[in-house]
Amino acid sequence: MIVIKIGGSILEKIINENALPNILNNINDDIIIVHGGGNYLNKYSDEFGYEQKFVTSPEGIKSRYTDKKTLEIFTMVMSLINEKIVHSLRNSGINALGINGVSIINAKRKDKLIILNEKNRKMVIDGGYTGKITSVNSDIIKNIVLSGYIPVISPVAYSPESYLNIDADRAAAYIAGYTGASTLIMATNVDGLYWDGTVVEDADSEYIKSIITSVGHGMDKKLMAATEAIDLGVQNVIISNPFKDIMHGTVISRKTHAMKI
Amino acid sequence: MIVIKIGGSILEKIINENALPNILNNINDDIIIVHGGGNYLNKYSDEFGYEQKFVTSPEGIKSRYTDKKTLEIFTMVMSLINEKIVHSLRNSGINALGINGVSIINAKRKDKLIILNEKNRKMVIDGGYTGKITSVNSDIIKNIVLSGYIPVISPVAYSPESYLNIDADRAAAYIAGYTGASTLIMATNVDGLYWDGTVVEDADSEYIKSIITSVGHGMDKKLMAATEAIDLGVQNVIISNPFKDIMHGTVISRKTHAMKI
Repeated sequence: MIVIKIGGSILEKIINENALPNILNNINDDIIIVHGGGNYLNKYSDEFGYEQKFVTSPEGIKSRYTDKKTLEIFTMVMSLINEKIVHSLRNSGINALGINGVSIINAKRKDKLIILNEKNRKMVIDGGYTGKITSVNSDIIKNIVLSGYIPVISPVAYSPESYLNIDADRAAAYIAGYTGASTLIMATNVDGLYWDGTVVEDADSEYIKSIITSVGHGMDKKLMAATEAIDLGVQNVIISNPFKDIMHGTVISRKTHAMKI
Repeated sequence: MIVIKIGGSILEKIINENALPNILNNINDDIIIVHGGGNYLNKYSDEFGYEQKFVTSPEGIKSRYTDKKTLEIFTMVMSLINEKIVHSLRNSGINALGINGVSIINAKRKDKLIILNEKNRKMVIDGGYTGKITSVNSDIIKNIVLSGYIPVISPVAYSPESYLNIDADRAAAYIAGYTGASTLIMATNVDGLYWDGTVVEDADSEYIKSIITSVGHGMDKKLMAATEAIDLGVQNVIISNPFKDIMHGTVISRKTHAMKI
């Protein structure tokens, strides 16, 4: 079984060009799809007339702050994307089942966030409505796959307090781990992990962990999710550009050699 | 198996009071939930700053016109409701799976609509993005129920041209018919079908068909969907107020006596 995470950076192109059925044609295995949708979120927040808030971590990383309204807009937009993906697959005769992640992904709300205030001093604020994934109800997903359907899962999680916004890369990693998938593909807008100007073909998970802080924003989160997936038992994580070749890019696994460029 | 349609009129109360788990406690059978959400739609259309359009049929019935933007807002709001229902059920330890209707409900887009223009003359306009349901992929729904989950289904359908807004009452009727459910419950904000000031306890489907045009707006659509469900093989349709007793209200079936008040 293969879990494919479709990143926000390529979602609009994939949907507009109706490219997904062709991309999946190259895969000869059962498939689960997990999607992001950050780019769409920006567009719809503007339409809603709701200004997104951003916070900066002590490490200097800027990220979206999920207050209650942002959470609502986030889940609505994710569901719209889900609908578009399912429609596109069904149009090619592929059975697809669009599932609210809140049904199957379990998370713990982050109580607090440490951020930098305007004076560049650390301060603690309420964690908002993002979560750290704790587990996945995998049996029902596997049953759906066995029924001949591709589950298409939105990155929203359940916690007792609220449904939560979660990172789609990590959602895909956990779903791959919990369903016992052999491979996690992170489909994105670059051909893989670049190192010294070249795409890394092959790297082991421990080595990847050691370089996470040295790669750019966006790729760092992908690598972190990739190593989580490996730790959860996934054999290979492929970071690839599906418009070139979804099965080839950077392959991360639990092998002993460090990295092959 | 019982299909429960939760109407827009009671959704807000059900969600705010977290009432659904208690309501379902009274039902001793497998359950499928289909939800509407018209009330929420009005609220969010306002937030989006998008003015809804309404059209009037030659029979004088006013209804929302689903253009492309309304369809988008509709599907987003339905998914948010779906999320809230699933969250509420999971909070009570009930396994629930939120499903995009577009995955399993098939419909045909209405090409044209006949409406009255300002001068009260009939005119033909593009049908917009509403659909007439043609079938339901029921095997996957039954598998999900067999897996111990309550499917929670949004009223959005698939057609080759687009996903479509569909009437939730009829979606519930078709899902009940295609899954072979014994009973369809239409949970709403009245205690059943009122006739001469009293709730009708029992009525047969043919009789109901004969009085559809004599009941008020809203109830007419429910009765139409109820008779469709009976025609599709459902044994009983119950129109009831879940805050009183979801299992009792007006029972419509294929019996021979006409109506019992």
